[in-house]
Amino acid sequence: MALGTIGNSEFDRDTAVSPRERDGGRGVYDADLSAGWTIFGAVNGGYLLALLGRALGDALPHPDPFSVTAHYLSASRPGPAVVRTELIRAGRTLSTGQASLVQYAPDGTEVERIRVLATHGDLGALPDDVRTTAKPPALPPYEHCLGKDHGPAAAVAPEISGRLDIRLDPATAGWAAGAPSGRGEMRGWFGLADGRPADALSLLLAVDTLPPAAFDLGLNGWVPTVELTAHIRRRPAPGPLRVSLATRNLAGGFLEEDAEVWDSEDRLVAQSRQLALAPRGA
Amino acid sequence: MALGTIGNSEFDRDTAVSPRERDGGRGVYDADLSAGWTIFGAVNGGYLLALLGRALGDALPHPDPFSVTAHYLSASRPGPAVVRTELIRAGRTLSTGQASLVQYAPDGTEVERIRVLATHGDLGALPDDVRTTAKPPALPPYEHCLGKDHGPAAAVAPEISGRLDIRLDPATAGWAAGAPSGRGEMRGWFGLADGRPADALSLLLAVDTLPPAAFDLGLNGWVPTVELTAHIRRRPAPGPLRVSLATRNLAGGFLEEDAEVWDSEDRLVAQSRQLALAPRGA
Repeated sequence: MALGTIGNSEFDRDTAVSPRERDGGRGVYDADLSAGWTIFGAVNGGYLLALLGRALGDALPHPDPFSVTAHYLSASRPGPAVVRTELIRAGRTLSTGQASLVQYAPDGTEVERIRVLATHGDLGALPDDVRTTAKPPALPPYEHCLGKDHGPAAAVAPEISGRLDIRLDPATAGWAAGAPSGRGEMRGWFGLADGRPADALSLLLAVDTLPPAAFDLGLNGWVPTVELTAHIRRRPAPGPLRVSLATRNLAGGFLEEDAEVWDSEDRLVAQSRQLALAPRGA
Repeated sequence: MALGTIGNSEFDRDTAVSPRERDGGRGVYDADLSAGWTIFGAVNGGYLLALLGRALGDALPHPDPFSVTAHYLSASRPGPAVVRTELIRAGRTLSTGQASLVQYAPDGTEVERIRVLATHGDLGALPDDVRTTAKPPALPPYEHCLGKDHGPAAAVAPEISGRLDIRLDPATAGWAAGAPSGRGEMRGWFGLADGRPADALSLLLAVDTLPPAAFDLGLNGWVPTVELTAHIRRRPAPGPLRVSLATRNLAGGFLEEDAEVWDSEDRLVAQSRQLALAPRGA
């Protein structure tokens, strides 16, 4: 497989959007959701968020997602989709917009899959100040973590795991052998299988592609995201990313899941939180 | 002052919205933003979120905000405002909608203040399961915390502090005397000054009315919210609430602030995160 670059990789091709028309600041885009990013037939939420971030990056005056919220309305399926964007406010350093991803039922009825609200800016224009008190996750070296050859992720989601290079911390991979830690944590190294370097869009993918933290609580099954908000805080430095997930409040049939993404310079480059339905399996 | 009740209190009157018309599932509401909830002339974001939550609770088939995201576009001013809502999806247990708060410039131009995306449900219909690993904040008793008579909040924001009953943990109030802890934390008891009990809407207020956690880092000045997402997880039990704020990633001119709200039964009833501009004062 040829080494991926930003702009020329599987991820870039599969998240491509093509502008259909422009009308008074409103951009409409055609997309083709790839079957390569599915889990049990449903298209992965992080992949969809990246695709929507790409459309908004084109439609808004600022390129990079600073804060993106997606409400997942119905499960997206591989195949054609349309993204409609709206510019809400264009400021000097930040702009805000929304996007809607729709697909079509066999009878032609439009079905909305995702509604997104986002504020964009320019990560390249941010000052260098850092006063982060958060600490990077303690993670064993890449070669001591569990990858797709002998890891648990591949068994769960063969299509998407072939496109990712995720290596789970063995301490959070016990669930695959029936021995979850009970702490509600998931940690691992994250990259794209073709070696494409990370950027703001692939960070949107990174926050929602590890196995759910709920698995580490001993819960099994589908964990449908109701809403996910991601903050992209820095353009990631070259090198591998570390992703850390945690859930602290499983109650009333719902749970939150927080993700942190750290780059090779020990900078917290993305933070996200999602509200999800708790899986029914125990 | 008469004791407030849910439905008959200062908070309820000031967040009231009156439906203007209905047209194909779209609800438009008139509102009057009260000068009583301002800080330096700008209307508080938590108060506005509660008002928008009230409009969406009327417009959507489900009453309670489960996940609400607001992007703050421009500073709201006391006076007339219009809320326009859209029903995006109505499901059996959840419904999703959006809302836009607008005001008018002197020349009649419409200015959008806030755009909101929310999923609502029915808190009363949730099962009782709890597996929360998060711990309530360690907070001194109410009477040992700093209230409006001798506390720092009143000096900062006299209008809104008269409507709230906030008592700050002395350990996170040192900033008012020029001695911030440097940890980026803020904790306190939270109630409404007229004794109105808490509900889902007042939780939206609670997540954004304590002094910013940035003050405890030694930063001074305005901390404008770019985006705030709140998850309401449970109808709060009667009794006082505890609110805990923290920021862990101040970098590139932005910071996140996480809020947790705990009720008298030690249940984590609300979680929120906001992305804000870091204050320039140091």
